[in-house]
Amino acid sequence: MSDARTEPAPRVVIIGGGFGGLSAAKALAKAPFDVTLIDRNNHHLFQPLLYQVATAALSPADIAWPIRHVLRGQKNARVMLAAVTGVDLPRREVVIDGHRVPYDYLVIATGARHAYFGHDDWAEFAPGLKTIDDATSVRRRILLAFEHAENESDAAERARLLTFVVIGGGPTGVEMAGAIAELAKRALAADFRSIDPRSARIVLVEAASRVLTPFDETLSDTARRALEQLGVEVRLGAAVTDCNADGVRLGSDFIPTRTVIWAAGVLASQAGQWLGAETDRAGRVKVRPDLSVPGHPDVFVIGDTAAVTDANGAVLPGVAPVAKQQGQYIARALIARREGRTVAAFRYRDYGALATIGRSRAVMQLGRLKVSGFFAWVLWSIVHIYFLIGLRNRFIVALNWAWNYITFQRGSRLITGLDARAEGQGQAAQTGLRSKAG
Amino acid sequence: MSDARTEPAPRVVIIGGGFGGLSAAKALAKAPFDVTLIDRNNHHLFQPLLYQVATAALSPADIAWPIRHVLRGQKNARVMLAAVTGVDLPRREVVIDGHRVPYDYLVIATGARHAYFGHDDWAEFAPGLKTIDDATSVRRRILLAFEHAENESDAAERARLLTFVVIGGGPTGVEMAGAIAELAKRALAADFRSIDPRSARIVLVEAASRVLTPFDETLSDTARRALEQLGVEVRLGAAVTDCNADGVRLGSDFIPTRTVIWAAGVLASQAGQWLGAETDRAGRVKVRPDLSVPGHPDVFVIGDTAAVTDANGAVLPGVAPVAKQQGQYIARALIARREGRTVAAFRYRDYGALATIGRSRAVMQLGRLKVSGFFAWVLWSIVHIYFLIGLRNRFIVALNWAWNYITFQRGSRLITGLDARAEGQGQAAQTGLRSKAG
Repeated sequence: MSDARTEPAPRVVIIGGGFGGLSAAKALAKAPFDVTLIDRNNHHLFQPLLYQVATAALSPADIAWPIRHVLRGQKNARVMLAAVTGVDLPRREVVIDGHRVPYDYLVIATGARHAYFGHDDWAEFAPGLKTIDDATSVRRRILLAFEHAENESDAAERARLLTFVVIGGGPTGVEMAGAIAELAKRALAADFRSIDPRSARIVLVEAASRVLTPFDETLSDTARRALEQLGVEVRLGAAVTDCNADGVRLGSDFIPTRTVIWAAGVLASQAGQWLGAETDRAGRVKVRPDLSVPGHPDVFVIGDTAAVTDANGAVLPGVAPVAKQQGQYIARALIARREGRTVAAFRYRDYGALATIGRSRAVMQLGRLKVSGFFAWVLWSIVHIYFLIGLRNRFIVALNWAWNYITFQRGSRLITGLDARAEGQGQAAQTGLRSKAG
Repeated sequence: MSDARTEPAPRVVIIGGGFGGLSAAKALAKAPFDVTLIDRNNHHLFQPLLYQVATAALSPADIAWPIRHVLRGQKNARVMLAAVTGVDLPRREVVIDGHRVPYDYLVIATGARHAYFGHDDWAEFAPGLKTIDDATSVRRRILLAFEHAENESDAAERARLLTFVVIGGGPTGVEMAGAIAELAKRALAADFRSIDPRSARIVLVEAASRVLTPFDETLSDTARRALEQLGVEVRLGAAVTDCNADGVRLGSDFIPTRTVIWAAGVLASQAGQWLGAETDRAGRVKVRPDLSVPGHPDVFVIGDTAAVTDANGAVLPGVAPVAKQQGQYIARALIARREGRTVAAFRYRDYGALATIGRSRAVMQLGRLKVSGFFAWVLWSIVHIYFLIGLRNRFIVALNWAWNYITFQRGSRLITGLDARAEGQGQAAQTGLRSKAG
């Protein structure tokens, strides 16, 4: 498409401003490309800490940063807030509601969303945790459950309101369950009169025989014991057979609850459909070793949307480091092509795995090195602050953690989105030291 | 209703956890009363800084604090999250959707909401600023206007998107207009490629002949000039005759815009209707000098919902200090009644008025003392941090201000509530250093 005589910079369009897309854009900073990053949100989200927004420890803005601000100094990059609806491969255009964006190279980094394995009706009762709006919605549900329990006179209903079920024993599920336990048993402990939040029942449900399956078995065991010490009931080998407004069914067992959080599975974005490409069961596009789509050497899929196998034939997990390394790889590959070179197939460097349980414990695995307890937690904190974007966010998050750690309190116990409720009583008094009436 | 033989503590029910209701509850801390504070939100909101949430300088949680956390140590107080729908005066009960809360004394501190003077159809196009959800919604509108302008190819539509009209030249309007100007001309300046945010047009519309009418004329003039230096177009003596999706009409003049913010007028809550009491034009209940409702000596109305006249016959403004002093007065009056004493009529102590214009200027009036400029701004900052609830909030807000001041940046440039938009592309990559798949 580009005119060979004047040779304008080839257009690289990146869809998705998560870890993969953003790292690709940044790695192209000084390269002779014209980069457009499209995302349907204005912010890059640090998803690993989303559970802390959902449990009132952090504010949404602490873990999100405007994508266009991150790339403001990068002259060859522009950012578009838009929802992509498809890709026109023959015309080499990204289709956006209303108009089209032409590309020479396309990088799809559109992530994944939570999936209910054919039970989409569960979504209403068991929300997942993928976006800021998901997190504030889960926060509202958790905090409202305590509020409603405080006003409830029926003991059975009160117990149901004070039961929280987290489905999925991966890092997100483990972190959520631990955080809810600490919220109930520490931060909220003294704030109610009719109920004792410390009596809340928190259940973590996992279909496998252990939590944190990507980790070594000994660490899974450590994590389970740490959860139990926090008061979390860990149900292993328990498959969810139904979710409804009254509770969660695990085969013959039924847990009455009003609050369920889904951390059990994800489905890749629709990129596979856009491209008409072959996908695996989780909807991930089966890419070639250079991350390009078979038959389309100029179209790449990375991150949670791509199925990439490592040397042992296992599919790489959907985590930030994989997406980041893939984004950087794409940039290197495009620069190489431009210079007439080729690069070797993508290879993931695994720097280890970390998961936190509650306020002062974590498990860490680095190859054969296994660490758990307080030291792992300190490391977890440092790693997460280091990877946050923006000095302000790092500072504010560190400060909030220090505050939470010392006081056991949560700074963001805010129920928002209640405006739809009956009008009539609001906050009293206005603003300033004097009249605000315009 | 209470049994004179056993003498249980009289039940004081307070509706509204704003400045008035909360100060009443706190001032009753050690008194022999059984206090119930009902609010439809779980948080006390520091409304004077709401405009900073709307302009991305602060996070919602920075200016809100859970009411039940504020009162957690107060043994005679309980907090109820509920939306009151009425008051049953003969039975002395507060009616809540579903059930009833009996009282011996009732304090209504339900505030005010923005009002469109009979033009309720304007609400859709010109949202006001009263709650956290209002603020995040206004923030979304402002930030989206820039985003849409960046994607817009039509010059007229781009100009319309880059025009922001604030209606109402009171402190809220002045603060909003100044903050939007700084957002456009500083924080966003370098982040776009197709548009220059510095070219944004910000118009402040005021029907009176000057802004900040509660202040002295010289300060109004100072504020207007400060706004103009920030690039705000100040339209005085301009009455809005229509608001619609395309713009704002001021008589024969029409300002094309996609973003209008309403800071022009308020209407008291529905308490007057609940009580069947006489109200003024703004819906405020005409209370007696002891703030009780005529004919109901045990029912009090305070804050923005009450019409209280000062010694000169002027109605007290709807601001935080009035509400706070009234809440404390009610507590003193109830304690006195209990002890068989009476208290003198409520008298407001006016400690002055403050309003800020942009990042380093303010105007201040303390009786005959008038101050403006940087010193007034420093004072404004100190006063507002001092009155925030909670050490954490004070610290985080001070830190954010310092950060904003030094870097000209805004820490909360977050567009939320977009989830309703088309699915299909999300944030790439998940969490942790390894798999999060449960």
